[in-house]
Amino acid sequence: MEFIDVSYRIEAEESRALRIARAIAVEQTVEVPPSLITPAIEESIVGQLVDLRPAGAGKDTTPLQPRPVQKSSPTSPAQLALIRYSAHLVAGELPRLLNLVYGNTSMQDGIRVMELRLPPSVLAAFRGPRFGVEGIRRLLGVYGRPLLASALKPNGAPVEHFEAIARDFALGGGDIIKDDQNLLDEDFSAWRERVTRCHEATEQANAKTGRRCLYLPYLSGRVEEAPRRLETLLELGIRGYLVAPFLLGLETARGLAERYPLLAAAHPSLSGPYYLSPRMGMDAGLVLGTFMRLAGMDISIFVNAGGRFSFDRQVCATIAQRLREPLGRLPPSLPSPAGGMSLDNLEQMTADYGQDACLLIGGALLSHSDDLSSSTRHFLDLIRDHFDERLEDPDDSFVDASCEWPDARTVHRVLHHLSHRGDFHWEGRSFVDYKANDALPFSGVRRLELIGHAGERTSFELRYFEVEPGGFSSLEKHRHTHVLIGVRGRGILVRGDETSELFPLDVAYIDSLVTHQLKNATTETFGFFCIVDRERDRPMQP
Amino acid sequence: MEFIDVSYRIEAEESRALRIARAIAVEQTVEVPPSLITPAIEESIVGQLVDLRPAGAGKDTTPLQPRPVQKSSPTSPAQLALIRYSAHLVAGELPRLLNLVYGNTSMQDGIRVMELRLPPSVLAAFRGPRFGVEGIRRLLGVYGRPLLASALKPNGAPVEHFEAIARDFALGGGDIIKDDQNLLDEDFSAWRERVTRCHEATEQANAKTGRRCLYLPYLSGRVEEAPRRLETLLELGIRGYLVAPFLLGLETARGLAERYPLLAAAHPSLSGPYYLSPRMGMDAGLVLGTFMRLAGMDISIFVNAGGRFSFDRQVCATIAQRLREPLGRLPPSLPSPAGGMSLDNLEQMTADYGQDACLLIGGALLSHSDDLSSSTRHFLDLIRDHFDERLEDPDDSFVDASCEWPDARTVHRVLHHLSHRGDFHWEGRSFVDYKANDALPFSGVRRLELIGHAGERTSFELRYFEVEPGGFSSLEKHRHTHVLIGVRGRGILVRGDETSELFPLDVAYIDSLVTHQLKNATTETFGFFCIVDRERDRPMQP
Repeated sequence: MEFIDVSYRIEAEESRALRIARAIAVEQTVEVPPSLITPAIEESIVGQLVDLRPAGAGKDTTPLQPRPVQKSSPTSPAQLALIRYSAHLVAGELPRLLNLVYGNTSMQDGIRVMELRLPPSVLAAFRGPRFGVEGIRRLLGVYGRPLLASALKPNGAPVEHFEAIARDFALGGGDIIKDDQNLLDEDFSAWRERVTRCHEATEQANAKTGRRCLYLPYLSGRVEEAPRRLETLLELGIRGYLVAPFLLGLETARGLAERYPLLAAAHPSLSGPYYLSPRMGMDAGLVLGTFMRLAGMDISIFVNAGGRFSFDRQVCATIAQRLREPLGRLPPSLPSPAGGMSLDNLEQMTADYGQDACLLIGGALLSHSDDLSSSTRHFLDLIRDHFDERLEDPDDSFVDASCEWPDARTVHRVLHHLSHRGDFHWEGRSFVDYKANDALPFSGVRRLELIGHAGERTSFELRYFEVEPGGFSSLEKHRHTHVLIGVRGRGILVRGDETSELFPLDVAYIDSLVTHQLKNATTETFGFFCIVDRERDRPMQP
Repeated sequence: MEFIDVSYRIEAEESRALRIARAIAVEQTVEVPPSLITPAIEESIVGQLVDLRPAGAGKDTTPLQPRPVQKSSPTSPAQLALIRYSAHLVAGELPRLLNLVYGNTSMQDGIRVMELRLPPSVLAAFRGPRFGVEGIRRLLGVYGRPLLASALKPNGAPVEHFEAIARDFALGGGDIIKDDQNLLDEDFSAWRERVTRCHEATEQANAKTGRRCLYLPYLSGRVEEAPRRLETLLELGIRGYLVAPFLLGLETARGLAERYPLLAAAHPSLSGPYYLSPRMGMDAGLVLGTFMRLAGMDISIFVNAGGRFSFDRQVCATIAQRLREPLGRLPPSLPSPAGGMSLDNLEQMTADYGQDACLLIGGALLSHSDDLSSSTRHFLDLIRDHFDERLEDPDDSFVDASCEWPDARTVHRVLHHLSHRGDFHWEGRSFVDYKANDALPFSGVRRLELIGHAGERTSFELRYFEVEPGGFSSLEKHRHTHVLIGVRGRGILVRGDETSELFPLDVAYIDSLVTHQLKNATTETFGFFCIVDRERDRPMQP
């Protein structure tokens, strides 16, 4: 039987802390009065208090290693309680893990989670970072020194400004350029346009330097749009993205990181209350280290000591340690200290983080934006003074099979596997104009021939249609029948006098000589498969 | 031009607070040094500090109404700063709103968000609660008094125990019975089984009482599974669910609430650090009131004063107020005080919350589980002593069209619209055994005939297949061709000597006389559409 060990700091003198610790063990697992706890539940579900000792001022040896960040609170006595939970309670789910460790207790004043030890069975349920430190290095071909990153800022500047930053930073040899998390694009199209341009500016500079600077766009938009935006990145050949797990949800960030073969960098927006107070919340190393790693974040950005935030060096050291320490089979993540960093902090950063870090320098580099490429080069030279840089060719051959990036579209030929490339495109097939019968009006419809048009020996054809918002197919009828399957969005299907809505995975059958039409009255693209007999008559007016 | 007004409590004397407030206005919008802020950006993007005044000890008149919860911190001077942001920065997105109000500032010690005023253009982007107070009352037919809710506990008890609680609570006249958020089911099937049984127990009691007690299962599982679980609830005729927005992500909870026509009740697990400290975080009324409402939560559970948590009555009153006050066109949500409540608290709760609340009584009722129905009835009688209860027939006719609940499956006949009912079932079609040729072995495969088998006039048939984990179709070949479209999970397609993976929306063409087989090597169900000629030869051994 395996256990999850959690160390809590309880702000109370010993006898009261003992009562509180026992209450935590019940609150976090069964949440009922003692009379309702049977012996079987007591044994298999309720947490066990296995240790309680005074919390010292910074010199505790707790039952777990390594030593947690321990701000002393001299006016209040505090105890460290170690509670052991049965590992099966987590069921491989991150929300359950968070709930077990701190769910209801998070609403109790004066209790802080200091350390967490997860057994192999729990760790095995998490994929962790897809790239990790080693994968990021291979992708960039940079070894032996910290990476240098910067940000596209400020929100409100024209796209040309961001293109110039991306280009100049890459020309100066910078490693990673990310969007500022505040950048505002009017809608998906504007986001796609800006992201495309910033990526191209970076790639053009890469073509000149022969190196690879990675551009990481910010995953903005409502959660419903996240798949579409990440599929767009894959389609554009962009390797990764910036996400704010505490804005979007840590579990949602994990789900996306697991699904898409992209490098994920985490921004800590809205995470502060989870670790800032020494009396409550969780150790910052757990929040920005362990949990970010469980959520599959390859890079975790946090505020560095000595910048414009009030973190101290010990907190930063613990975050970096949690990101890089052994944790089951999960690769280490790259710590990325940020927040008001400048050339002056370089000594401290190299001392504190060593080579496996990503130094994120925003304003201090951009203030030299009249010559950003030389200030980038200057900063890198200073980094190289402290480390033995080793460069190799950027390599992404190691990325798993689902991590291929799409090629240009190819001409129609019989294809045995048409991979869906995201964004409702298929490898080897492209959209053609929709024109069933010149005499019948239609608007905003396009068609993609999947099967049957390229010489396949089927008695039917499989096509994919898209109707833009406000668009409609021609109102028509014919002797042959249709079968429709909703794929994306929501369309209106007119059939004779009837009207129905077609949602994804709905199947509709349009019988012979029934007048029909498809319309899109929403603001999203409506897409559907249409299966039709190969031998068929020409559409006619109703 | 519209604005978002945010009132921050800054723990500092006035001149320092002024510097901090100005820094917040920059940090939350552009996050760059002053030299990079152009006049245009200054005007349209950077926040404006419009008011700064000392924060009194509980008697502030701030620029916004109503008065926030304001714990005094007598040893430290504090100021209230009102910062005004341009409303367009939010772009209708909840993560952006959270980022603008408190994103990076959440990592700065001593700054707390006290109040928030959202203009109509921002509110219009949120659907808000689908049912709200009025919709919940119509659904239940209960007016004029607070609702009574309880929970299925404790985790680890057998399903029969939960069935008995649900039944007895409903027999006693209780209004809402929810899962405890700790309940652990082994997997989706076990969850579905338990939820079905608890729902049926509730419905059987409802049939006896002639009233409606709502059962709300907990939305557990990984985020990827959430759609499947909610679609299952729709299929089972269950009206709502319990979700923990701070475990799953507030934005994810909003997206699900917006998509599924179900009543959403929010559990506050892991929310504490966002409001517990008077020095940082946000006002509890914003976190558990305003933001829950923006996320579409019909019911917001929070810990009541006087229970086993340390909330005071003023905090609870502010949460209830934020849930019910006018907020654009968003319906009010139902406050649900909970956490160690008992009969003794009834006076306080009726005085504090009035009739529009949902009193969640767990342990105190369940401790009488030898006679839960009479203790429920007793509690309701006490409630009725304070209020004028009015009962009507439970009504769900008002729920929008997409909110129909499916009927039992019907026999195969030509159907013109096969609605996808979630969980990969279609209205009017059910799975049949898969048996292509008795001589060819297969395992764990089932088939659903969508089109072509019931008399439709097509030259092809559309079927949906599922292969269970470890299952495989027969290794076979035939003269006719196949077209496959991935729908769910991930399968292995063996074609001659080649093997490839079929992902959702991938299209595969299996040519004539090519030996083929489909296998599932994952732990998830693999599902695909298969389109095949109506006139076809019988499969043969390779």
